[in-house]
Amino acid sequence: MIDLQRDGDVYVLRFDAGENRFGPDFLAAVEDALDTVAKNDGPGALVTAGTGKFYSNGLDLDWLGAHRDEFEPYLGRVHALYARLLTLPMPTVAAVNGHAFAGGAMLALAHDFTVMRTDRGYFCLPEVDLGMSFTPGMSALIRARLSAATAHEAMITGRRYTADEARAAGIVQRTAAEADVLPAAVELAASLAAKNGTVVGEIRTGMYGPALAALNGPPLG
Amino acid sequence: MIDLQRDGDVYVLRFDAGENRFGPDFLAAVEDALDTVAKNDGPGALVTAGTGKFYSNGLDLDWLGAHRDEFEPYLGRVHALYARLLTLPMPTVAAVNGHAFAGGAMLALAHDFTVMRTDRGYFCLPEVDLGMSFTPGMSALIRARLSAATAHEAMITGRRYTADEARAAGIVQRTAAEADVLPAAVELAASLAAKNGTVVGEIRTGMYGPALAALNGPPLG
Amino acid sequence: MIDLQRDGDVYVLRFDAGENRFGPDFLAAVEDALDTVAKNDGPGALVTAGTGKFYSNGLDLDWLGAHRDEFEPYLGRVHALYARLLTLPMPTVAAVNGHAFAGGAMLALAHDFTVMRTDRGYFCLPEVDLGMSFTPGMSALIRARLSAATAHEAMITGRRYTADEARAAGIVQRTAAEADVLPAAVELAASLAAKNGTVVGEIRTGMYGPALAALNGPPLG
Repeated sequence: MIDLQRDGDVYVLRFDAGENRFGPDFLAAVEDALDTVAKNDGPGALVTAGTGKFYSNGLDLDWLGAHRDEFEPYLGRVHALYARLLTLPMPTVAAVNGHAFAGGAMLALAHDFTVMRTDRGYFCLPEVDLGMSFTPGMSALIRARLSAATAHEAMITGRRYTADEARAAGIVQRTAAEADVLPAAVELAASLAAKNGTVVGEIRTGMYGPALAALNGPPLG
Repeated sequence: MIDLQRDGDVYVLRFDAGENRFGPDFLAAVEDALDTVAKNDGPGALVTAGTGKFYSNGLDLDWLGAHRDEFEPYLGRVHALYARLLTLPMPTVAAVNGHAFAGGAMLALAHDFTVMRTDRGYFCLPEVDLGMSFTPGMSALIRARLSAATAHEAMITGRRYTADEARAAGIVQRTAAEADVLPAAVELAASLAAKNGTVVGEIRTGMYGPALAALNGPPLG
Repeated sequence: MIDLQRDGDVYVLRFDAGENRFGPDFLAAVEDALDTVAKNDGPGALVTAGTGKFYSNGLDLDWLGAHRDEFEPYLGRVHALYARLLTLPMPTVAAVNGHAFAGGAMLALAHDFTVMRTDRGYFCLPEVDLGMSFTPGMSALIRARLSAATAHEAMITGRRYTADEARAAGIVQRTAAEADVLPAAVELAASLAAKNGTVVGEIRTGMYGPALAALNGPPLG
């Protein structure tokens, strides 16, 4: 479902579960991997990546449909994952190898930087077209990481951004052909791995205070 | 004074009162039109437009001069108009056919998107040159919709932005020749009319919580 | 250590103390100069500039090392300087003639606009590489003046921005060759000197409420 490897100073966390939706087993596996990563001592950085044509499609709507009474704690768990990445004591890079939709797009936004594949895949917040609003935590995360104009367009129109469009809109920082996405992300992460991880975590915690408060608050506000 | 028509799924609200300043009668007419629009069921979107060389020049300073004791409730009413647009349960597009100054510029900013005329007209926040500050609600609205750099320049220098400059600064999203401004705005609005209006309103309400709190709070802070 | 001259309507405050670090004597001299400037009546604007290859390198770490028990009030004094500039009742322009690092970079950000020298000097927030986090006030100042993407990159990577890179990232508004930095800053300041200073100060105070609250709060949060 996931695979955690170390490449020099860089932890590479591959999501390998099809659309990489956030089912409970997927979340548990990612949480365990981040527990391992967070114990790192010395230089370190994290890259997350999907496989095939998906980075992640976000919430597991099938599971949610069968567990409606667990909606709120489930959202809280997803929020906690975003908050965990925002405060992770090391630099982080998302290797967006394919579609990053909805909660999966927000997962990419919770990283320091994103490298996105050019020939295929979209960054998209389709909630408006699914008849869904954003939780206070999600709304705060998106607003904190994107420009006002980009956040507005992405959230109100549900636009599907190609890699080039996402870079022009400031959503991702680099683009690469399919075969180069992961290497470029690892290279970027390696270039940052010598930063003091504790300080990196503290700086982000200070920068994103309001977003973290929203993510750590009641999931539905 | 105003004219409300429906063009397919798009409501077109034309301001037709010269400089389209926010006198009490103008505000009452716009409020009534928005009441009608808000009752829409099914696909829908709103375009607002001025006539001739003015979109709107904002506060009615002549009326205010004659009603100084009504300054605070008057500002509250203008704030409520901005808040109403920010929370309107359907996509909104401003067709800026001419000057959008001061409160009229902020009215445009309260829409989802703006199409601005290229050959004539400015977007301008001239308050600094009028010896006026911004209310907390207005300041929050501007900051929430523009980049930090653009908001600072616009508010501190009172710069008059042409359509091309406004687009480069991220103030407007599209530009068009005079005859094309309204058609382009209607086309953009029509492309968004199928969005679930309730969800659109909820998403904006979540995105602009602090600005809405300021707009709904005491007008002078 | 510093020199305050008046050039037409423009006050030119030169820092002339090597790296222009914020030692107590330097801070006292700048505070005195700002006291003088703030008494201005009529048209006025302020330009600050360094000398040689330094605009300012920020905190005086040597002095701090010898006065560890004064760390918190010292930070409070630096915060107060930033807050003073943000609320100064006249337009302000930083002439960044050389390196603007750490607290010195933030000093530039506390001005309305910055002109930066093209052939030499960097804008840099190197805290992460010094093993230091940002105080709540500093973090809030940076976030309020830069785009989310630029603030993140600058704070997490400690990138050294040349003038051209700083302009592309929205950190500075103009660039100039060495000999032209100060004249360009004075020209820009002069063009704004007729603004009503009180109103300028009020507009900024309204725009930067949260940053000012953080700068005026407990220095370490």
